[in-house]
Amino acid sequence: MNTATIYTEALTKDAFAPFGDVLEAAGDADMLINDGQCKRYHDRAQLELVRGGRAGLSIFQAQPRALPYTFTMMERHPHGCQAFIPMQAAPFLVIVAPDENGAPGMPRAFLTKPGQGVNYHRGTWHGVLTPLSEPAIFGVVDWIGDIKNLEEHWLKTQYVVETAIE
Amino acid sequence: MNTATIYTEALTKDAFAPFGDVLEAAGDADMLINDGQCKRYHDRAQLELVRGGRAGLSIFQAQPRALPYTFTMMERHPHGCQAFIPMQAAPFLVIVAPDENGAPGMPRAFLTKPGQGVNYHRGTWHGVLTPLSEPAIFGVVDWIGDIKNLEEHWLKTQYVVETAIE
Repeated sequence: MNTATIYTEALTKDAFAPFGDVLEAAGDADMLINDGQCKRYHDRAQLELVRGGRAGLSIFQAQPRALPYTFTMMERHPHGCQAFIPMQAAPFLVIVAPDENGAPGMPRAFLTKPGQGVNYHRGTWHGVLTPLSEPAIFGVVDWIGDIKNLEEHWLKTQYVVETAIE
Repeated sequence: MNTATIYTEALTKDAFAPFGDVLEAAGDADMLINDGQCKRYHDRAQLELVRGGRAGLSIFQAQPRALPYTFTMMERHPHGCQAFIPMQAAPFLVIVAPDENGAPGMPRAFLTKPGQGVNYHRGTWHGVLTPLSEPAIFGVVDWIGDIKNLEEHWLKTQYVVETAIE
């Protein structure tokens, strides 16, 4: 099996746009609520959920990983988006890839800042949940229904994620 | 105006059940996913969203408060639940009250532990978002639609929340 190295990138709205939404309190809020005491960044995720299921809210607790991190599998959810809201202010790794004829293309690895979550758009290829420290608890909004909503793809190349040299 | 003191209670599933869901990675997970590396506590919130709107995901950033904390207003959302997922591992205050003939009854103040969020069930009287430290960023799932979804009630008693003496 071939091995290739990819380097972490900062997670920004623009860079992540082809894959999903960055969930963060950045820039101007859409509304001030609670007598001015709370900023509301309103409706910031494209919650696409195919008919036959509904939005659900689950909690994930994942095993922390370390960099360099090696992976050989990516997955996607055909019936809906999947949002990850970290319940701690710690960076985690967000691995995504464009679709190329039904398979993941070249992956990219984003490193979040504290206070950033992500929403993978429906059908976006992504890696498994990869926190880098404990605790590693996430609120997850995704499609819940009675049929299978997971497609896994084993890669022909083994990718190693390393920290970008600053 | 009368003043009354209420003391913080620990946030537990049973104590909070009349008001909503506690969102946490506690007890047995419902599924192990990602090759055993991730626990999924599946579908842990009653996401009741009345027709005419849809689930939305927003980010709130609130001003931290301090204890003792005084409040004279509670609110509720007639068209749907509202889930708060803290994006930092810090306790925050969750003030709720039972409904008594269309007005809030005696309030209760729960103090979360790190890793706990809440989902207010549709129509539950609650206080404004009250973090106790910075950063104070929350992922919020609630009903989004074109009509007003907020009812505010000014109390005849001013309540002061104090920490319970251990």
